[in-house]
Amino acid sequence: MIKVSIVSIGDEILIGQTINTNSAFIGEKLTELGFDVIRNYVVGDNKNDIMKVLEEAEGSSDIIFVTGGLGPTHDDITRTCILEYFNTELVFDEGAFSNIQQLFKKRGREVTEVNRDQAFVPKSAVVIENKRGTAPGYELSKGGKLFFILPGVPYEMKGMMESTILLKLESFIKEKKIFYKQKVLLTTGIPESGLYELLGDIPSLIGDCKLAFLPSQYGVKLRISAKGINESEVENRISGVEEKIKSLAQKYIYSDEEKPLEAVVGELLRKMKLTIAVAESCTGGMITNRLTNVSGSSKYFNRGVIAYSNESKMQILGVSPQTIEKFGSVSKEVAVEMARGIKKISSTNIGLSTTGIMGPTGATPTKLIGLIFIGYADDRTEFGMKFQFGDDRLLNKERSSQAALELVRRMILKINNET
Amino acid sequence: MIKVSIVSIGDEILIGQTINTNSAFIGEKLTELGFDVIRNYVVGDNKNDIMKVLEEAEGSSDIIFVTGGLGPTHDDITRTCILEYFNTELVFDEGAFSNIQQLFKKRGREVTEVNRDQAFVPKSAVVIENKRGTAPGYELSKGGKLFFILPGVPYEMKGMMESTILLKLESFIKEKKIFYKQKVLLTTGIPESGLYELLGDIPSLIGDCKLAFLPSQYGVKLRISAKGINESEVENRISGVEEKIKSLAQKYIYSDEEKPLEAVVGELLRKMKLTIAVAESCTGGMITNRLTNVSGSSKYFNRGVIAYSNESKMQILGVSPQTIEKFGSVSKEVAVEMARGIKKISSTNIGLSTTGIMGPTGATPTKLIGLIFIGYADDRTEFGMKFQFGDDRLLNKERSSQAALELVRRMILKINNET
Repeated sequence: MIKVSIVSIGDEILIGQTINTNSAFIGEKLTELGFDVIRNYVVGDNKNDIMKVLEEAEGSSDIIFVTGGLGPTHDDITRTCILEYFNTELVFDEGAFSNIQQLFKKRGREVTEVNRDQAFVPKSAVVIENKRGTAPGYELSKGGKLFFILPGVPYEMKGMMESTILLKLESFIKEKKIFYKQKVLLTTGIPESGLYELLGDIPSLIGDCKLAFLPSQYGVKLRISAKGINESEVENRISGVEEKIKSLAQKYIYSDEEKPLEAVVGELLRKMKLTIAVAESCTGGMITNRLTNVSGSSKYFNRGVIAYSNESKMQILGVSPQTIEKFGSVSKEVAVEMARGIKKISSTNIGLSTTGIMGPTGATPTKLIGLIFIGYADDRTEFGMKFQFGDDRLLNKERSSQAALELVRRMILKINNET
Repeated sequence: MIKVSIVSIGDEILIGQTINTNSAFIGEKLTELGFDVIRNYVVGDNKNDIMKVLEEAEGSSDIIFVTGGLGPTHDDITRTCILEYFNTELVFDEGAFSNIQQLFKKRGREVTEVNRDQAFVPKSAVVIENKRGTAPGYELSKGGKLFFILPGVPYEMKGMMESTILLKLESFIKEKKIFYKQKVLLTTGIPESGLYELLGDIPSLIGDCKLAFLPSQYGVKLRISAKGINESEVENRISGVEEKIKSLAQKYIYSDEEKPLEAVVGELLRKMKLTIAVAESCTGGMITNRLTNVSGSSKYFNRGVIAYSNESKMQILGVSPQTIEKFGSVSKEVAVEMARGIKKISSTNIGLSTTGIMGPTGATPTKLIGLIFIGYADDRTEFGMKFQFGDDRLLNKERSSQAALELVRRMILKINNET
């Protein structure tokens, strides 16, 4: 296997102001190609620390990715470290400068001295063009090890990976004939330990494959993986395990293609030629936000109403004041009337609703924080379901939106909703 | 300074299936207390690699945090590594078992053998109680270095940090008398290089402080930081720089308390006794989702309408068919009518709207992907503003939601909206 390390540079990551999504992106792409990502390092904007980590990474890996610290401001010191580490000097790069000029022209702004400085690159580097920003990347090598130095802005780094680096690495690894494959099954509606027990004796289930359980508020991801020198043999091993898991836990698996639930539900709606409208109270727009993250969602998503106030529940959705009076706005009855109402005014096939207490305030002696009711209405049936989640407002919104979308998935596929 | 390293264990992080939020959380909390977080490591579920990284971290740091790999399933090997690294053995812990029993009772489920096994802990460890999950944490020491071993589920890890570890470390560092302070100013509506030039000569501006520029789709964070042995002297240095930056860039600074823009806007609405309703097309619920992430938002947020279809724009918001016909649904005119309409039906003080082309499809020869119009209406004025963002659907939704909320902030504070 070809070993890869990823070095992220920046105090902002160490002190937790920026979450390290760059390592995740690079790790995912390199794994898919068949590289063995063995280590991530994060180090601050400090020359000694950067030099030390570069050495450590060079010692353990064949390919080293470095991101961050290439920006135009004074706290960006990666270029200085690279000059010293590779014992080289700066030269002006016409291509990089022309790219900067074009970017500024497009945005209708003037190129300044600060930006022009970014066109100076290490002499021994191959320049990697950055079409989305002003800092070019560098490819360098040392002692047979390959280094890619990229800016830390995720959108710029991703653009450079996709347009240049991944293509190069793909042809590089094809010559090595090592095969790593993985399959991910996304489940929801069952806790990690419940799923673990449902699957029974894991070693006999997985044989020579690996199986990982990855729980989050959206459910438990199952990752099956295997390595080998024969591609189809590796694939067969994995699909054998996949079939066994599916036969045991089919009901809970919403995707075997790593698609988020909103995309899975969207595809089902599209395939069945169904439309949906959503009336949200406690989830406050998270469900519609998720549904509309999917390109093409306008085909099946008609509208949403975020009915936070009681009057908006009554006025737009036609929830009856008596129902609110009698059962409270957080109740199964109100959830059902909201779902029925949004379906009616939108003339969609499905109406979905949420009402609940997300916290940290709003609890009553009989209605705890984390209590939520999901309402569902279609042409044949309507009902409400009760869920009791935890104390954290954002997690509760996320869990509720997941439970609501899962309910729609199961209704379309006619899967029993009981856990 | 007391040096801290954070070791995250799990293949899922290396291969990019899980984003490492745990390191960010621990890094942020430890920095706030005055510790010097110098390194993050991520290592896979592999005993040799884990042992090697533990040694590296022990060599460079005084305190080492380890998260992940303590779960109930077969791929969790951290406990095994810890036994070997600290040369100790497993003992059954009654307290940990009683916690597991209580958790299961609360959820109405039976304790199984798999769960009972988690009550076995390293003999030389001090057990850290986990009220949110079944895996206890461990505190251990070796060669004068302190180790905290915690589960990788963020909600559980955070609970243990907040209820036990941070309190302990706070009293520990108080005896050391080292002061690190920082101040973060959140800006939006100006690019990094524009802000850099607006601030002029950085070295003379910041003196003995550090200043970092952290750009994202939400704007540029400015972080001023300083260290010293006299707490008030450090604070004075930082506030001197803060005042200078504010005098140069006040208009773009929406928070000096690290509050997200939705919380800042929420506080302004509350303080000025104003209410808001939102009609979203292209942002698809992201604005209402952000507004309702803030606890207490029901005080000023009345309702949202996600008017994805043209008929919902007309039917609920009263947008005129002629306006859509003449200017298209992505137009300044429709944005204004949407804002006016949502304000009217909700009887709020402010109506806010978005309509645009988020991509990847939907562009026309004259309307490019990333084109968005934001509509605003209050009792005195109404208008639409045009923005041209980029090609990425999710980034466009995020940028648009930020621009819309910033527009509301500036209108309430009567700040000129031109950049």
